[in-house]
Amino acid sequence: MKALVKVKPGKGFTLMDMPEPVIERPNEVIIKVKYASICGTDVHIYQWDEWSEKRIKPPRIIGHELCGEVVEAGKEVKSVKIGDIVSAETHIVCGDCYQCKIGNMHICDNVKILGVDIDGVFAEYVKIPALNAWKVSSNIPIEVVSLFEPFGNAVHSTLIDEIVGKDVAVFGCGPIGLMSIGVAKVSGAKRVFAVEVSDYRLDFAKMMGADFLINPLEEDPVELILDKTDGHGVDVFLEMSGNPKAIIQGIKATKKGGRVSLLGIPKDKVVFEDFAEDIVFKYLKIYGINGRLMFKTWYQANALLESGKVNLKPLITHKFKLEEYDKAMQLLINKKAIKILFEINP
Amino acid sequence: MKALVKVKPGKGFTLMDMPEPVIERPNEVIIKVKYASICGTDVHIYQWDEWSEKRIKPPRIIGHELCGEVVEAGKEVKSVKIGDIVSAETHIVCGDCYQCKIGNMHICDNVKILGVDIDGVFAEYVKIPALNAWKVSSNIPIEVVSLFEPFGNAVHSTLIDEIVGKDVAVFGCGPIGLMSIGVAKVSGAKRVFAVEVSDYRLDFAKMMGADFLINPLEEDPVELILDKTDGHGVDVFLEMSGNPKAIIQGIKATKKGGRVSLLGIPKDKVVFEDFAEDIVFKYLKIYGINGRLMFKTWYQANALLESGKVNLKPLITHKFKLEEYDKAMQLLINKKAIKILFEINP
Amino acid sequence: MKALVKVKPGKGFTLMDMPEPVIERPNEVIIKVKYASICGTDVHIYQWDEWSEKRIKPPRIIGHELCGEVVEAGKEVKSVKIGDIVSAETHIVCGDCYQCKIGNMHICDNVKILGVDIDGVFAEYVKIPALNAWKVSSNIPIEVVSLFEPFGNAVHSTLIDEIVGKDVAVFGCGPIGLMSIGVAKVSGAKRVFAVEVSDYRLDFAKMMGADFLINPLEEDPVELILDKTDGHGVDVFLEMSGNPKAIIQGIKATKKGGRVSLLGIPKDKVVFEDFAEDIVFKYLKIYGINGRLMFKTWYQANALLESGKVNLKPLITHKFKLEEYDKAMQLLINKKAIKILFEINP
Amino acid sequence: MKALVKVKPGKGFTLMDMPEPVIERPNEVIIKVKYASICGTDVHIYQWDEWSEKRIKPPRIIGHELCGEVVEAGKEVKSVKIGDIVSAETHIVCGDCYQCKIGNMHICDNVKILGVDIDGVFAEYVKIPALNAWKVSSNIPIEVVSLFEPFGNAVHSTLIDEIVGKDVAVFGCGPIGLMSIGVAKVSGAKRVFAVEVSDYRLDFAKMMGADFLINPLEEDPVELILDKTDGHGVDVFLEMSGNPKAIIQGIKATKKGGRVSLLGIPKDKVVFEDFAEDIVFKYLKIYGINGRLMFKTWYQANALLESGKVNLKPLITHKFKLEEYDKAMQLLINKKAIKILFEINP
Repeated sequence: MKALVKVKPGKGFTLMDMPEPVIERPNEVIIKVKYASICGTDVHIYQWDEWSEKRIKPPRIIGHELCGEVVEAGKEVKSVKIGDIVSAETHIVCGDCYQCKIGNMHICDNVKILGVDIDGVFAEYVKIPALNAWKVSSNIPIEVVSLFEPFGNAVHSTLIDEIVGKDVAVFGCGPIGLMSIGVAKVSGAKRVFAVEVSDYRLDFAKMMGADFLINPLEEDPVELILDKTDGHGVDVFLEMSGNPKAIIQGIKATKKGGRVSLLGIPKDKVVFEDFAEDIVFKYLKIYGINGRLMFKTWYQANALLESGKVNLKPLITHKFKLEEYDKAMQLLINKKAIKILFEINP
Repeated sequence: MKALVKVKPGKGFTLMDMPEPVIERPNEVIIKVKYASICGTDVHIYQWDEWSEKRIKPPRIIGHELCGEVVEAGKEVKSVKIGDIVSAETHIVCGDCYQCKIGNMHICDNVKILGVDIDGVFAEYVKIPALNAWKVSSNIPIEVVSLFEPFGNAVHSTLIDEIVGKDVAVFGCGPIGLMSIGVAKVSGAKRVFAVEVSDYRLDFAKMMGADFLINPLEEDPVELILDKTDGHGVDVFLEMSGNPKAIIQGIKATKKGGRVSLLGIPKDKVVFEDFAEDIVFKYLKIYGINGRLMFKTWYQANALLESGKVNLKPLITHKFKLEEYDKAMQLLINKKAIKILFEINP
Repeated sequence: MKALVKVKPGKGFTLMDMPEPVIERPNEVIIKVKYASICGTDVHIYQWDEWSEKRIKPPRIIGHELCGEVVEAGKEVKSVKIGDIVSAETHIVCGDCYQCKIGNMHICDNVKILGVDIDGVFAEYVKIPALNAWKVSSNIPIEVVSLFEPFGNAVHSTLIDEIVGKDVAVFGCGPIGLMSIGVAKVSGAKRVFAVEVSDYRLDFAKMMGADFLINPLEEDPVELILDKTDGHGVDVFLEMSGNPKAIIQGIKATKKGGRVSLLGIPKDKVVFEDFAEDIVFKYLKIYGINGRLMFKTWYQANALLESGKVNLKPLITHKFKLEEYDKAMQLLINKKAIKILFEINP
Repeated sequence: MKALVKVKPGKGFTLMDMPEPVIERPNEVIIKVKYASICGTDVHIYQWDEWSEKRIKPPRIIGHELCGEVVEAGKEVKSVKIGDIVSAETHIVCGDCYQCKIGNMHICDNVKILGVDIDGVFAEYVKIPALNAWKVSSNIPIEVVSLFEPFGNAVHSTLIDEIVGKDVAVFGCGPIGLMSIGVAKVSGAKRVFAVEVSDYRLDFAKMMGADFLINPLEEDPVELILDKTDGHGVDVFLEMSGNPKAIIQGIKATKKGGRVSLLGIPKDKVVFEDFAEDIVFKYLKIYGINGRLMFKTWYQANALLESGKVNLKPLITHKFKLEEYDKAMQLLINKKAIKILFEINP
């Protein structure tokens, strides 16, 4: 089968023939990939950054955001059946460790990430445990099914604590930041401040319902947010940028007793000059976010999409054939796209 | 001043002259009443039911749902100032008991209810502690300001636990039930089932966003809800009817592990034939609801109204002069009105 | 192998030869039973009450409280290995339903109970899914290992909400009530009121740390508890009796804003004469309890036993051979025992 | 009256005559000081560090940890009466701001700290709002009454999230760290790791119940904790040192999905080299802690002291006359004392 592969250490991908996956364990399913969307992680692997170098063991089929159809199932599988349209939870878990056993499968001690630690979805077929196959409601548009996984990140980050009536700041309006804006608005948030250096992305932030658009290259987000909140700051800060400066700014723009969800992944060190003032005295509640609850978050995400409350379609700015992967990666590197779909077996 | 008074035990009210209230303690304020809305409790007092007989010590000025203007303030008052438009939290609390001290002022051991235990708002002026005067945001329509207090009940009942992506059943579509429908919908609820014997009220349920309208005189609400939820039931049951049968039905229509908020006040005994099956094995979480959090709920309510997310105006079906109180009470007794406003000093 | 079997509808058990269990699915394990303790449920099945008649499909090997050794494991099993000493979670779950998927496996839609819906542990060997085998810490006394499962009920009921500094009433001092007393005391509860009609059991309540022993046949528990709590009642009411009257009394003895955990299983209807006063106005938070969290509760239980904080040994009042089952059952029926261990392969 | 005063900017205190406080507002009380204990903050003010220079406006009577007797009360005071023995909540709050109104009085926007922003308790008399006077249970030893306030910090830091069955690391064994060890142990914590550079303090950690004593000058606390927890780390990290290095170490020694309470006040910047790895991917939940809940924490603290579960007496290493303040301060500066009591009107 055709697959996008990191064949050896170094930049780039290779589109090549790979053997089709085969059921080996009784709880596995084979999925025929219809659509797969590109995540920032895929771009990092394409660019072969430091993290990729440490983590990826080539050859590896890349990609984890999946929309596909179940075409084969191991003999213990009951949760899905042949023909079901599914998305995929990308954390492949052991089921036996402490975290798995207390309901925190998403931070399994032995987690393997689809398209990172095991072969992924930029291919005609992919094999996953049945547990990871999420059967989607029939009235969810098929184009957004592969977006379920990053949408789950947005849902979990936004809803891990109270949101109704709250002022919310989203720093970083990449796909997950944009989705978070939508989630916050339909979940009763009062006002959403979107902070993002790219005006291209800020337009999408507006489309998702942001009440204030702030380009930190042009205005000071802390000052502006404090100004609009009578000097108190927002109740909720969703950190989606991974920018160390944004982390500090967002915290400074958060109200005493406020809540912070940290999803962005800073590559550099983060320096708190006023740790006591900004966090301790401020009585902040800070959540590091990793993945999504398996599978409470998926039910929430499904409900928000099924009911049409959140519409992710506008975030799909491009659709490509797998062959066009270089073009797709360049668009993402240049921040000229939000979500790109590979149409594999549409 | 003119006031609606229960002058002695028995049915009815008397519109009569009463002395204007006078500041006696340093934390009190005098409010000039602009609008006051009628609560079911006022109707009970009008009808002089068993509860009224035990609780009310005539002569008593009735009414507690307030929109007014601060016209005088004790010397310790800082939270509001002359000219502020305010609504009123109706639980007058001691501030010293265990409940007050742990943040549960709304269930103060020494609570006095406005218009019940002390003189109320169906009058030209009313005196309340400054703590109880809620300054409303200027962009909230003045007609709905007196609805803040029952709206707070709806907000607290609905949001005391998770709501996003949940199926919700509201049994009883009086004013608070109707408001709850609105709150649930804008806070991310998936679908709302409205259950109510009055078709007049069901029309309002639809207007507030209910997805399913069920008249239990015509169809079995348990059967219907189970049918629409694949046999599992709703995630959240908001009991707003006070009907013992509805309490049982609502619980039977709730999913295992579901949540119940009980706000309705049954007058008769409530009999659980299948207590183990319906509550214990079902792993239900049940909240008795009394009042609203002072004042977390008020901030939530204010945000939902200020942002225009919830619109209460359609629920005001009638406006009357204080003189027309008999007509107003009759409409409510006959369930031909949702909320009625007295225009006192509009 | 030797096993205690309900061979046909009707009273009693039969000790007889049964075929040894055989691994059929890759995630199963075979356990050689060392000790098995008797639960009230087993007594009901012995007596063949109404519930048993509806639920049990003979022939069925009875018993679910297990201490045993893993002697065989299916090929997918990684969580335990041959030779491990294990207890058993008795809820055999599907893993695929909504409840299983949101972390509520203990209320699985397709749950099968060990010794009730499938063959149990009053036998030389038993087969369970590896998921249900809880490997115990080596320093937990082997005699108490089979008590893990009811202890989990106690832990979950007690710790489902705040306990530190709280006054707690435990109504019903059967084994789980007694264990709850111990859990509450070592988890920071202020004072524990034990309410129980049997003086024999009250002695054990004292041993587990109860501060007040109340025999409701001799004194009014509501009056006494209110008296000792300045008229306010306890913060936490753990209902472990299943007695409809006790449910009402316990609720009446609970403080406004208090918390109730309902574990006892009433066989009769439960009638609330003052539902509004006792639950709604009181702002109670009521939890129906079913089972234990899988497996967060098991980790808590393990820690409490491993650290020696809670000592369950004194609750084991008798040890018998399987052959002595009639004697054991009679002792339990006559409430002359707390926990009875069958020594099977000790 | 005699009082310990910061008379002008610069090092040291002055013991001098000051006018006795006078009731000016109806909710105030005058307390005759019996004992007052010394907090690290008092030492900072004595040493006139950077923070003191910015915050303190001399002349100011210092001290905030109080045990005293109510000798006069304003006419609105109902919560305490003449003769009551009280401790003091040191956050003097406005009651009107957002934080006060949602139950977060302890982070009041207009908070004034006793002995910092207004005159304190190192004096024969002090005036506080009645709200801040905590009437202690009669069976709490009078020497520990002034320790209520720092004990409240320990209680709130420890119990802000789950503790039963958890492994806990306390970094920094000053008075509050030591108290936290005691709180954790009696609230069901499994094992407590005490990390502290002073062996003098580690001896007290042992006395409070710590299971492991770690001097980071001698061994690597991260390594040791990971070793004792199968490489996973502790469930709960209580940061009581204010040392930037300890903050990082403690976080590295915390389990995935773990909880962190930050109470220590770092004076320098805090640098996270591995922010993503240590916080985001780790799915940590971090609480900045400021003060104590007013007054939920006080009830918890009172219960733990009243029941004798936690014994604070051993932490009082010295008692002095007010005149001996220089000696007292030197002991604390040299870390040769845990808590020092001034006996003022014992």
